This record gives sequence, C-alpha cells and structure tokens, in this order.
Amino acid sequence: MEELLIGDERLDYLLAENLRIIQSPSVFSFSLDAVLLSKFAYVPIQKGNIVDLCTGNGAIPLFLSARTNASIIGVELQERLADMAKRSVGYNGLDERISIVEGDVKESPKMLGFEKYDVVTCNPPYFPAHEASEKNLKEHVAIARHEIHLTLEEAVRAASQLLKQGGKAAFVHRPGRLIDIVEAMRANRLEPKRIRFVYPKMGREANTLLIEGIKDGKPDLKIEPPLYVYDEQGEYTDEVRIMLYGTEE
Amino acid sequence: MEELLIGDERLDYLLAENLRIIQSPSVFSFSLDAVLLSKFAYVPIQKGNIVDLCTGNGAIPLFLSARTNASIIGVELQERLADMAKRSVGYNGLDERISIVEGDVKESPKMLGFEKYDVVTCNPPYFPAHEASEKNLKEHVAIARHEIHLTLEEAVRAASQLLKQGGKAAFVHRPGRLIDIVEAMRANRLEPKRIRFVYPKMGREANTLLIEGIKDGKPDLKIEPPLYVYDEQGEYTDEVRIMLYGTEE
Repeated sequence: MEELLIGDERLDYLLAENLRIIQSPSVFSFSLDAVLLSKFAYVPIQKGNIVDLCTGNGAIPLFLSARTNASIIGVELQERLADMAKRSVGYNGLDERISIVEGDVKESPKMLGFEKYDVVTCNPPYFPAHEASEKNLKEHVAIARHEIHLTLEEAVRAASQLLKQGGKAAFVHRPGRLIDIVEAMRANRLEPKRIRFVYPKMGREANTLLIEGIKDGKPDLKIEPPLYVYDEQGEYTDEVRIMLYGTEE
Repeated sequence: MEELLIGDERLDYLLAENLRIIQSPSVFSFSLDAVLLSKFAYVPIQKGNIVDLCTGNGAIPLFLSARTNASIIGVELQERLADMAKRSVGYNGLDERISIVEGDVKESPKMLGFEKYDVVTCNPPYFPAHEASEKNLKEHVAIARHEIHLTLEEAVRAASQLLKQGGKAAFVHRPGRLIDIVEAMRANRLEPKRIRFVYPKMGREANTLLIEGIKDGKPDLKIEPPLYVYDEQGEYTDEVRIMLYGTEE
C-alpha cells in the first residue's frame, strides 16, 4: 500500500464533519475561509452536481460532503495539492461522492462540461500576483493565494460556464474586491443574491466577503447578518465554534 | 412677522444637536436614514462647501451644521418642503451657514457650479416610481420617497458633477440597490471607499446601506462595522440613542 502521508504532511481532523484531511505546513493547509464558504454556500441535500474550483487539498469538497449527498468534483491546478486531496478523499472513503480533477480552472468547463452543474463553489487566489514575488513565497502557496495563474474574473467566468441556468455560484474573497467580484459576476450572468460579511470581531472592519449568485437570476440582493469570528475575549464565537468543532463547547 | 408654522406643522426637537425642525405628518417628516447619513458622512470641520441633495425639510443640513462650520446648501425640488426647510434654518439662526435652494437636483450643478464642492450628501428617493401610484400616496411624500422626478443614477451623476476632484459623496439607500449604486458611482468617477450596513437588530438582514465615494479616488473599499438600530429588548442601541438624543440615557 502507498504511504498515506508524504514529507511533513499531517492527518488533521475536521472535527465537525468527523473527517480527516491531509495537510502540510510547508505546502498547503486550508484556511478558515474554506470553512466559511462551505457553510455559506447553498447545496442541494439529496442529489445534484457540485464543482469546487481551486479546491487545494480538498477541504471544501470534504466539508460539503457532510451537508449533501450530491456528487462533488474538486478542480485543482497544482499536482501536489490535487494529490493530497485525492488521498484525503480516499482515506475518508468518499471516492464514490468526491472526485478530484487536476487541471486549470479556466479549462474546467471544457473538461467537465458546460451548463451541467447545480452549484459551483470557489475560494480563489486573493492577492495580486506581484505581491507573491515580493514576499518570496514558496511556489505552492504563492499559486494558491495569489492571482498568478487565475484572476478573479477568470474564476467567475469558469463558474458561470459550468452552471446550469438557475444554478448557484458561491465565492469567498476580500471585501476590498466587492465591486470587482460583483461586476465580474454580472458580466458573466451571475446575479448576486446573498452577501455575508465576516468581521474578525465586533467594532472592526470586515475582512472576508461571502457572496452567492444565481445564473440568470433576477436582481434582489440580501445582506445577511454579520458573522463575527472572535468574541471580546479573543475566543471563537459560538457560530464559528460550531462550524469548526460541531459544538459550542 | 410671518407665521412660523403652517397647517399641521410641528416644531420638533433635534435633541442631540439642540436644534428645532419644522415637520408635518401630512407633508414630510425626516426619517432615521437622514440621521444615519448625517453621522456617517465625512465633513470638513472648519471650512469648506457642502451640498445636500434631496434635502426635504432640511434635516441633513441642520444635523451637519452641528458637526462642521462649512457652508451648506440644501437642494429641494418641492416648494412646500424647501419652504419648511428655509423656515427651520431661520428659526435656528443658521441663515449664515445654511442656504436652501429650491430646484431640480439634476440641474443643481448648473445652478450651483461644477466641481466646486468638497462634500455632497444625498438621501434620494428609494422606491420605484410605479409603487407610488399603487400606494395612492400624497404627492409630497410620493415625490420624496419614489423615483418619480429623480432616479438613483441621476442623483449620483449630479453629486459627482458638483464635487471637486478628491471630494466626497455620501448616500443612504437600500441594500437591494447596492450593485446599482456602486455601478452608478463608478460610471460617474465616484470610487466607493466606505460602506456601512445598518441592521434593524442582531440576526436580521441589513435594511439600510450607507456608502461614501471619492471623486477620482483609487479603489480601496472598506466595509465598516455593522450598525444595529434596536437591541434585543426592542430599544434603540446606545449608538443610535447617542445619534438621536446625544446621550445613552
């Protein structure tokens, strides 16, 4: 049998989902944003077809598998990350429900089919490409976090191309890009319907944006209640604690 | 001496500002939105030139006069409302600092001058024009609240035309129009820089949007902390109480 873990990889717990995920401090670990998006996105409960773009080590498909019986495809450009994701899916016995596809998100509609999917999720690279070289990041992290191989507009376009009419696309991004993402969505037939801002704590500016749009939907945007990550004592709020651990304790 | 009050008008208190304002239940009374915008908008403290578009009975110029020594022009289409505003300004002895101009907001740059102002505030009509006739509203209220004589895009354009480069425009509107207002602002050289969402109480969707943009500013949007109007007991929160009454008591 192949080794489950390579190099400095660890088998971490996804406590709320009772699953395990392979991570590596030097290659890739999922962030809270992946958790937030997994909980924010609409998913059909019983059946359907979901694509997670920029899936990294497969955190979002794993989280979503606890909320839906739909089949889920995760698309990841980087071979090393896609391989981690595949091993995690296998370790959790989810090969029947989750497929990991190595490939370029921009090409994903050609690979997976146009207008075939009910839901697309995407936690795209957030940061400008030039910052990656300034920060001298390792390549895996640089590609996952910076717009080197995929711009926001390209991610939005691929999501729209994958979706059926009436399908839903959910993204997580930085609030500073709100206008860009909204413009990209509208330019690609995704009408923004729900936005939720995530604040590190009360009294602070939002640092994360969750947004969902419907392909060819009618304009009718709701701004959902704020989500706070930490309370006044610097502990996770109950809402985030339940997302992470499945319990308020 | 002329009568101060006409018909069913009342001389209400603006407690936090220690001012009085003429209102009429049948003609026009200012809303919480005017208060929120007056507190949200940036204003120069010592000097400058401010225009408040859609000024109604002059609530926003009166509120702003407590925060700035700048000169303020309020523009109001409806003669009856502009007259109320003028009498309120006179009653408070603010004729040196506040002028009320009766006229069409769309024509205000021609009347008042292009690119001359530091700040423009605007609490525009919110609701689609067709709803006014369905609701059989009185004409004064219908014009003030519905897009009968002024669309959102026209209000944004007038604001931009009035502003100097680097000047600031602040609007209050409904969250459902977020994308429209952002698109209108960008199309008119107003780069959105600050947004604050107002929630009726915790756990509910936002029902009001405050947004400020800078003419020819660089993209860099902040989402400010949420503002809650009511607490769990259905009382005004401390933040709103201070805006309205000047004290938490």
